[in-house]
Amino acid sequence: MGSNPLGQILAFILIAVATLMLLPAIVDFVHDNHDWLIFLYSSLAVGIVGVMVALSTRSDRPPEITLRRAFVVTTCCWCLLPAVSALPFVGLGIGYSDAFFEAMSGVTTTGSTVLTDLDRLPPGMLLWRALLQWIGGVGIIVMAIIMLPFLRIGGMQLFATESSDRSGKVIPNPRSLVEWIAGIYAVLTALCAVLYAMAGMTAFDAICHAMSTLSTGGYSTHDASFAFFKSSAIHWIAVVFMIAGAAPFAVYIKACQGRPGALWLHPEIRSLLLFLTVSSLGMAAWLVWNLGLPFLTALQLTAFNITSIVTTTGFASADYTAWGPQVIGVFFLVMFVGGCTGSTSGSIKIFRHQVMARVLVSHAKRLTSPRRVIIVRYAGRRIPDDVPASVLAFLVAFFGVIALFTLVLTMLGLDFVTAISAAATAITNVGPGLGDVVGPAGNFATLPDAAKWVLSAAMLLGRLELFAVLVLLRPEFWR
Amino acid sequence: MGSNPLGQILAFILIAVATLMLLPAIVDFVHDNHDWLIFLYSSLAVGIVGVMVALSTRSDRPPEITLRRAFVVTTCCWCLLPAVSALPFVGLGIGYSDAFFEAMSGVTTTGSTVLTDLDRLPPGMLLWRALLQWIGGVGIIVMAIIMLPFLRIGGMQLFATESSDRSGKVIPNPRSLVEWIAGIYAVLTALCAVLYAMAGMTAFDAICHAMSTLSTGGYSTHDASFAFFKSSAIHWIAVVFMIAGAAPFAVYIKACQGRPGALWLHPEIRSLLLFLTVSSLGMAAWLVWNLGLPFLTALQLTAFNITSIVTTTGFASADYTAWGPQVIGVFFLVMFVGGCTGSTSGSIKIFRHQVMARVLVSHAKRLTSPRRVIIVRYAGRRIPDDVPASVLAFLVAFFGVIALFTLVLTMLGLDFVTAISAAATAITNVGPGLGDVVGPAGNFATLPDAAKWVLSAAMLLGRLELFAVLVLLRPEFWR
Repeated sequence: MGSNPLGQILAFILIAVATLMLLPAIVDFVHDNHDWLIFLYSSLAVGIVGVMVALSTRSDRPPEITLRRAFVVTTCCWCLLPAVSALPFVGLGIGYSDAFFEAMSGVTTTGSTVLTDLDRLPPGMLLWRALLQWIGGVGIIVMAIIMLPFLRIGGMQLFATESSDRSGKVIPNPRSLVEWIAGIYAVLTALCAVLYAMAGMTAFDAICHAMSTLSTGGYSTHDASFAFFKSSAIHWIAVVFMIAGAAPFAVYIKACQGRPGALWLHPEIRSLLLFLTVSSLGMAAWLVWNLGLPFLTALQLTAFNITSIVTTTGFASADYTAWGPQVIGVFFLVMFVGGCTGSTSGSIKIFRHQVMARVLVSHAKRLTSPRRVIIVRYAGRRIPDDVPASVLAFLVAFFGVIALFTLVLTMLGLDFVTAISAAATAITNVGPGLGDVVGPAGNFATLPDAAKWVLSAAMLLGRLELFAVLVLLRPEFWR
Repeated sequence: MGSNPLGQILAFILIAVATLMLLPAIVDFVHDNHDWLIFLYSSLAVGIVGVMVALSTRSDRPPEITLRRAFVVTTCCWCLLPAVSALPFVGLGIGYSDAFFEAMSGVTTTGSTVLTDLDRLPPGMLLWRALLQWIGGVGIIVMAIIMLPFLRIGGMQLFATESSDRSGKVIPNPRSLVEWIAGIYAVLTALCAVLYAMAGMTAFDAICHAMSTLSTGGYSTHDASFAFFKSSAIHWIAVVFMIAGAAPFAVYIKACQGRPGALWLHPEIRSLLLFLTVSSLGMAAWLVWNLGLPFLTALQLTAFNITSIVTTTGFASADYTAWGPQVIGVFFLVMFVGGCTGSTSGSIKIFRHQVMARVLVSHAKRLTSPRRVIIVRYAGRRIPDDVPASVLAFLVAFFGVIALFTLVLTMLGLDFVTAISAAATAITNVGPGLGDVVGPAGNFATLPDAAKWVLSAAMLLGRLELFAVLVLLRPEFWR
């Protein structure tokens, strides 16, 4: 039996975070901003601990990742990462609860923020927020593509390669896959940044926003988010790259390996695009009709904000909750759509909606023709028998956790709409909720500290498809 | 092949309604109230049409209920019943939209009302409302026990007797079953009425409230609902009989046939009682702590109102939405619990929650032990393979319809909380929603007519477990 790799993986994360912290340190140093010391000290502290952990968990035996260990490692990583990434935020003078919330919101690519006056923050701090989202985004893609199908969470076995063995070892040869993903992710981010800059952003804004666009994170460098930018081109570039971040990265690899048609033929991408088009056009028509906006202005607003929520990014180009109660209802509901599997987006995700739709139709068929054999297919292949039950389990956990967290948040004194929308926006990793406090024009800073910890837990649960965390709560798991 | 029984069944309903209308006519006549003519004319009109339909659809061939026809008949019955039962309400001077809403809310045992000044309404009208709920209640039990397991809707095949054949005929020998159900229902109602009267209600109030208690309907003869009654005994009697109405009637039959232990051993009843006890005690403690109420006062309030919502009755003994945002969250969520299968209650129902919990746990087990064979059991028996998918289909339809109707209601001008809680309370057949308009202290009268039709459709969908109606929407159904 091989050694337990937990310590080595955590050490790797610590050292990586310490190294990354040098980037904002350099930026702030160049800008002659005292904050560079915050990053330097944080980096040193984290780095020293990382090296110590690395040395103390060295082992001559090869590491072996069993299924059980994979669950523990996954959750530990996603707790340690925000815990140490939060250190520089404490340097802003906010409490550790706020700092941890901000870091968790970053690495889970949620985008809810407790910071105000973003426009006056030192550039290093803004870069650090964008970096956290960017790292969190690529982290989740790697996890989703490599780990989750093996973990078989919530119906994801649908995407397991047919040849996958179930022998206990999780990853046969992951290195080239990770390289491909990181490469594609980096190229898309660079492309997005260049286009942002060409459309009028400063180089710094372009880089930061490109990182939080591709990661469908939603952190901006301005309090007004994308409403700060008046250029239409910037908004449409953001729409394109939010969708790019919400597309399945496994398909990009196929496309790069000579099958560009794979992108267009992918059932999740098609449904996502169809949904975004129909809902943006529909709501734009409504805005034209009710608020008298010119059609293109309305379409730019709806396409941007709907895409932002559906892809679970969370940028806002307007306070859409001021458009009327009808629109609030739509924006609450589209939180639950989500992007594609193996992307940076969260929430229920397109493939689960597709499975649900197919199960719904087949149930209706079965009711009227009980003796007919009905085979439920997805993308031409038969859906494995255990997928509907897995999707059901996911939904039960998903809405159960939202209900539970809504109750807890109301107990902490939040009003009902704030509580339910904050719980939903955290678990779906979207970012903004509804109402004055957590809405697109609000800020999470005024929530009680306890609510911030609850929401941090919700973001973690949502990011890890719930079950990667929930299985750890079963006493049997630890026997 | 036998004849199509649709016409005969509709004729039977028309004649039954016409006959029933004579009861309030007599009551109003005795009370020397002019309204007795409204009921007489309505009765004559409905009765004449009924007889004509009966004569014109006579057939020498024996009627044959196929599966397809069962779906059509079911939905037709539950549309025709409120359509004709609404006639007397028009006599009150309200429009037909309001009258239909009131009748649909009655026969689906929802309990939302558009009528105000109930305390001054003629007794015949109050009796008619109670009668509609009582008939609707027994109707749904008969349908749930006899029909739905054969229709296999939303996982109800779990309750199909093992010997049931699937030969196309729905009911082998239903008469004695219907007699048993009606008998038990009548006895329980009589018992409830006697106890109400002994505890201080007038005879008329006791009879009307007994009918709307056993049917988990929620229509009261007073605007203040149960807040009108000051006696604690009345409230606790209501709690007991709301639970009795939400219990599975098939188990009562077993109990009457010499197995009284069946009641206590039934998994749905146990879970329902456990849930009600824990949530009532918990919320009572919260009221003691926060509002300083004496414990027994608090417990009476919470036990009554939580039982009322969970059993989808909808009586209110206080405006619980004034107790604080925490409580509003709880009352919104417990709408989705529901009573037992084969009872008068609506919503998701206990057995589906139990299936969901078992699927959730087995999914978590499977994730950590992928090679273990995990058998999911319910009440000692293995859950059939298609039940999780059926429950998933039900939930998707359930929340999908709530989402859709919420959107439609916001389009009609309702605010978000009113819209989502009205849609939810209609589909779950609870009665009151949240907010000033549709909350427990509000009234549905001020909603636009279109919203009333939408909510009527929602009540029908919820009452018929959605799929009995939804399958009719598939074009293939009619080929």
